[in-house]
Amino acid sequence: MKKEELVAEIKRKQSFLCVGLDTDLNKIPKHLLDTEDPIFEFNKQIIDATKDYCVAYKPNIAFYECLGKKGWESLEKTMEYIPENIFTIADAKRGDIGNTSSYYAKTFFEYLNFDSVTVAPYMGEDSVTPFLQFEDKWVIVLALTSNAGALDFQFVKDAQGEELYKKVLRKTSEWGTPENLMYVVGATRAEGIGEVRKTVPNNFFLVPGVGAQGGSLEDVAQYGFNEDCGLLVNSSRGIIYAGQGEDFAQKAAEAAQAIQQDMHKILQAKGW
Amino acid sequence: MKKEELVAEIKRKQSFLCVGLDTDLNKIPKHLLDTEDPIFEFNKQIIDATKDYCVAYKPNIAFYECLGKKGWESLEKTMEYIPENIFTIADAKRGDIGNTSSYYAKTFFEYLNFDSVTVAPYMGEDSVTPFLQFEDKWVIVLALTSNAGALDFQFVKDAQGEELYKKVLRKTSEWGTPENLMYVVGATRAEGIGEVRKTVPNNFFLVPGVGAQGGSLEDVAQYGFNEDCGLLVNSSRGIIYAGQGEDFAQKAAEAAQAIQQDMHKILQAKGW
Repeated sequence: MKKEELVAEIKRKQSFLCVGLDTDLNKIPKHLLDTEDPIFEFNKQIIDATKDYCVAYKPNIAFYECLGKKGWESLEKTMEYIPENIFTIADAKRGDIGNTSSYYAKTFFEYLNFDSVTVAPYMGEDSVTPFLQFEDKWVIVLALTSNAGALDFQFVKDAQGEELYKKVLRKTSEWGTPENLMYVVGATRAEGIGEVRKTVPNNFFLVPGVGAQGGSLEDVAQYGFNEDCGLLVNSSRGIIYAGQGEDFAQKAAEAAQAIQQDMHKILQAKGW
Repeated sequence: MKKEELVAEIKRKQSFLCVGLDTDLNKIPKHLLDTEDPIFEFNKQIIDATKDYCVAYKPNIAFYECLGKKGWESLEKTMEYIPENIFTIADAKRGDIGNTSSYYAKTFFEYLNFDSVTVAPYMGEDSVTPFLQFEDKWVIVLALTSNAGALDFQFVKDAQGEELYKKVLRKTSEWGTPENLMYVVGATRAEGIGEVRKTVPNNFFLVPGVGAQGGSLEDVAQYGFNEDCGLLVNSSRGIIYAGQGEDFAQKAAEAAQAIQQDMHKILQAKGW
C-alpha cells in the first residue's frame, strides 16, 4: 500500500486505529474451540466487526508460530480475509544479516502479502535494508518501545548526549524514506513521542501502549500528529477481548467504535 | 541440555563445531527437488554425514519460515531427526515484550524442542527473561554480530566510554547465568572476542563468521577459549554447500571433519 492510500483511508474512515490480532487459544471464547480453525474463526468475526472502524490490522506472529503448521495456516487464511484497503502489519520484530533478512522479507511481503513488517535495529544497516527493496512495502523499525525494558538500552546516551533511540531514528531514516519506513513508538512515553517527532517529522509511527498499557490517545495525538496524520495507534486486548461470550464480536465492534469516535474528534479538530 | 553435558560432548568428539542448517531450496542439489520434502531430505543426509564431527546444529528459521506450512513441517521433521546428544539452536533472533516473548519461547522450547534460541536485546529485560524460565533451555543473546551493520549501533560508546555491546553483556548477564545464557559473538572481530571474554568470563559464545565471512578459528580460540571451552563455532555454507552434486553429503562430511581436526588440535594443545 502506498502512503497516499493509507492517508486517504484515514480521512475516509476518520480513524487511525490499528487492531492487534494477538489471537490466543487460551483467551478466545470457549464456544469457538469446537470449530475447525478457532483462531481463524475468531479473527474472521473480529475483522467483520471492526473493519469499518480501523485502517490497519496487526497480527503478532508469536501467537501463530506457537501453534506450528496449524498456526501458519490460520495466519494465511486471516491475511486472505482482510479487505484490500486495510493496511497489514506483521508484528514479527525480525532482524538478521543480509541474505537471511531477505528471506524474512519474502516470507512476510510475498508469501503472506503483508504491507509491512516490524524489524529490530540492533544488527544495523544490512539487517534493515533488505526489507526496503520491495515496492509499496514498509519496514517498521523498533525505536522507542512501550515496555519497561525499553529503559535498559534505548535511553543510553552517547558521549554527545544522544540517546540510542534517537541514533536509531537518525541512522535508519537515511536508509529509507517516509514512503517505506515507519517507527514503533510506545504511547507509554508521550514526551518521547514528541522527541521522536522532532527527529523524524515525516514518518508514520505505529503506537502501541494506548489502553491496557496506560498511554493516552490525546497525548499521542498532541505529540505525534503530522500533516499526514502520521499515526497508527494500536489496540489489541482492549478490542479483541472486550467480550468473552458469544457476543464477543459485537463487544469488539463497540470497543473499536469508541476509539474511532475519539479519533474522529481529534481529526475533526485538525480540520480533517 | 545442561552445560556439563555439552562440555562432555565437546571433549568426547574433540569438536566445538556447530553446523548451520541454512537450507535453501535454491541452493540444494537439483536431484533432491524430486523428493517429497527436499529440505528435510537434504538436512537428513547432512545430519547423517556430519553428526560425528559437530556438537550442535543451528537451523536459521528464516529459511523454513519462507516456505510457510511446508517449511515448518520440514523444520519439525529435522528437529525430530537430530540425535539427542547434539545441542540445537533455533537461530530466530526473536525479541518482544513479556507475554509475547513467552509465546516465542514456547514455540522453540516446547513445540519444536530446541535447546536454545537466539534473542535480540534491543527491547531490554522483559524481552529476554521470559526465555530464561525454561529448565535446561538456553538464551543466546546477540552481543557482537559478524555483519557490517554491527558497526552502526553496537560500538556506540556512552558518556563513560562503554560500548553498547558491552552494556548488553553486562546487563543481560545479570538476568541469567552461564548455565542458561550464551552470547552471539562474531568471529570477524577477533579482538572483540577477547573484550567480550573479559566481560563475561564464564558464558558460552556462539561464534558465526569463521570461513565464508573471513574469521579465523585460531584467533577465535586464542581470544575466546575458557575453562569449559566456552565456544560453539558455527559454519553453515562452508559445510552444507561444500558439494553441489549427488555426493554433497560426502563433501559436507569432509568439510566438517576438516574443521573438527583443526578443533581437535586446539583442544589437544589445551590439554583436553
